[in-house]
Amino acid sequence: MAAGGNGGAAGGGVDTKAAFAQIYKTLKEELLADPAFEFTAESHQWIDRMVDYNVLGGKCNRGLSVVDSYKLLKGADVLGEEEMFLACTLGWCIEWLQAFFLVLDDIMDDSHTRRGQPCWFRVPQVGFIAVNDGIILRNHISRILRRHFKGKPYYADLLDLFNEVEFKTASGQLLDLITTHEGEKDLTKYNITVHQRIVQYKTAYYSFYLPVACALLLAGENLDNYGAVENILVEMGTYFQVQDDYLDCYGDPEFIGKIGTDIEDYKCSWLVVQALERADESQKRILFENYGKKDPACVAKVKNLYKELKLEAVFGAYESESYKKLIADIEAQPSIAVQNVLKSFLHKIYKRQK
Amino acid sequence: MAAGGNGGAAGGGVDTKAAFAQIYKTLKEELLADPAFEFTAESHQWIDRMVDYNVLGGKCNRGLSVVDSYKLLKGADVLGEEEMFLACTLGWCIEWLQAFFLVLDDIMDDSHTRRGQPCWFRVPQVGFIAVNDGIILRNHISRILRRHFKGKPYYADLLDLFNEVEFKTASGQLLDLITTHEGEKDLTKYNITVHQRIVQYKTAYYSFYLPVACALLLAGENLDNYGAVENILVEMGTYFQVQDDYLDCYGDPEFIGKIGTDIEDYKCSWLVVQALERADESQKRILFENYGKKDPACVAKVKNLYKELKLEAVFGAYESESYKKLIADIEAQPSIAVQNVLKSFLHKIYKRQK
Repeated sequence: MAAGGNGGAAGGGVDTKAAFAQIYKTLKEELLADPAFEFTAESHQWIDRMVDYNVLGGKCNRGLSVVDSYKLLKGADVLGEEEMFLACTLGWCIEWLQAFFLVLDDIMDDSHTRRGQPCWFRVPQVGFIAVNDGIILRNHISRILRRHFKGKPYYADLLDLFNEVEFKTASGQLLDLITTHEGEKDLTKYNITVHQRIVQYKTAYYSFYLPVACALLLAGENLDNYGAVENILVEMGTYFQVQDDYLDCYGDPEFIGKIGTDIEDYKCSWLVVQALERADESQKRILFENYGKKDPACVAKVKNLYKELKLEAVFGAYESESYKKLIADIEAQPSIAVQNVLKSFLHKIYKRQK
Repeated sequence: MAAGGNGGAAGGGVDTKAAFAQIYKTLKEELLADPAFEFTAESHQWIDRMVDYNVLGGKCNRGLSVVDSYKLLKGADVLGEEEMFLACTLGWCIEWLQAFFLVLDDIMDDSHTRRGQPCWFRVPQVGFIAVNDGIILRNHISRILRRHFKGKPYYADLLDLFNEVEFKTASGQLLDLITTHEGEKDLTKYNITVHQRIVQYKTAYYSFYLPVACALLLAGENLDNYGAVENILVEMGTYFQVQDDYLDCYGDPEFIGKIGTDIEDYKCSWLVVQALERADESQKRILFENYGKKDPACVAKVKNLYKELKLEAVFGAYESESYKKLIADIEAQPSIAVQNVLKSFLHKIYKRQK
């Protein structure tokens, strides 16, 4: 799976988006004037450009959903200036975290483009300095949190949250790398459990759980009381990634903005693990012989097998099932405000076409 | 400058070393049973091997100096079991931090060996997975701190300390990379200020300040009251790195265990910035023409110029000056225990030959 190709549940009204964008400028300026490091003119310019290049350019769905979730938790349409600033700041921290993952994942995956421009490490004069830039992006989160949240009763919990989510994401990335990395193409390693575990750790925690957990901390809640909410969001994140895998093959390239290459890239996609689950011996042979090859004829054979195995219908059934289960779990939540947050996420992604 | 080639101030009696080594096993076992991630057999084995490969094999001077410093602060020869465990644990966190830096620095510097074995990213089957492994090593520190220090009054300060030191180190590494990285060989960029700034941020904070700051937090001190101690340790760390640069050229290879290649590698060494400072136009031309070339004849010309400029004597004077200034600053400290900690560091490194 490619990291964060699509951007989590969409959100944010026009006003929120404008306020959110404005706060980026403040945060970046503060980082560039951080007294913990004496910037030279060169390093100042480098960081300025590096942050713009990597943090901006996405849809900011993850970041904006902190603000949306916090509003729903408070039952308020409008937030006070301070509250709005803090919610947007945590949203930007998630965008910074995403930038950190993407810069490093692109190096590890030897990728070429990201968000319509060359990957950062491919920019002339950057190269492997990008590894250190990734670290600096992660460090920026700690600097931002320290500046704006030190002294809040939930400060240590906030640091723990970002640390734990980062740990889960990096562990998911390790699983993905050692299961699906080149040189050892072996489809017998791929199955539903493996797929589910990679997706859950690598994507779901930081894309779905983290924004809501940030909003809960801002609202003064203790995350220890929200284990069920965590599970629901991780399930929703898994469902989101399954959609991503499905759309890679069956989505409209015009609409999703890219041509899927999961089959060519030997990805541990939900589709291939479903196919492996359902294939007889001769069908398995087709998969083993054709999966992960650039040749369009091989790709066509795999797609044809997916059709034989009726994976479109399998996906349709999975989608309805997931929705029903998620709605039931959400409605079992004692707080209506929390239900609203979770339903808002779910309705942004259910039956999405891109 | 190569990251952490030599290992900070030496320390630790035989007993401390044995206890320290024992605690590594406990910490690693805990990490491999961390409930925040469901390990597969493969990922368990990967992390086990990766941690051993990268965290072990150094002299542990940084880690051991947490224990030594804490004993001096408490004025106790022996620590209680719990105190000893916590001091060693913080020491290991510094060793983990060092491992994180080294794994990533070796990728960025395209290095070949480290601590007498191939760099981790050069091990077959590892490659760029090493980038993610570096991240996981950093994450291990957060996991260790959370498990053993969450709930302590200084928990948030401990997280802030590791975060701030990491930020300074990564910023120093950026300075080093953009000042001295290949493709733009330009000696006019090198001067004493540049050298001093890189060394201070890239090496001194994590090698000298961090161990003492950990010991101070353990002893219940507020780091805000120790700005002067921070400055002294950063100066000592700078002095240590200057020695390193000096020994690279003038040390006995038999004794320091390696043959220096700073001249060939175009390093922003203390020697070259001193030479640039003192060279007339024709001598500068020699430097510009010969510095950073593999050809032994070029290296010899640079070394010859160092001799002409009497850099050995310049270093001798720098060494005595630094020592006098450091001793004066240390003796201006109100606490004798703190003086002892600082003097212990200084005496481990003053006039060292390796």
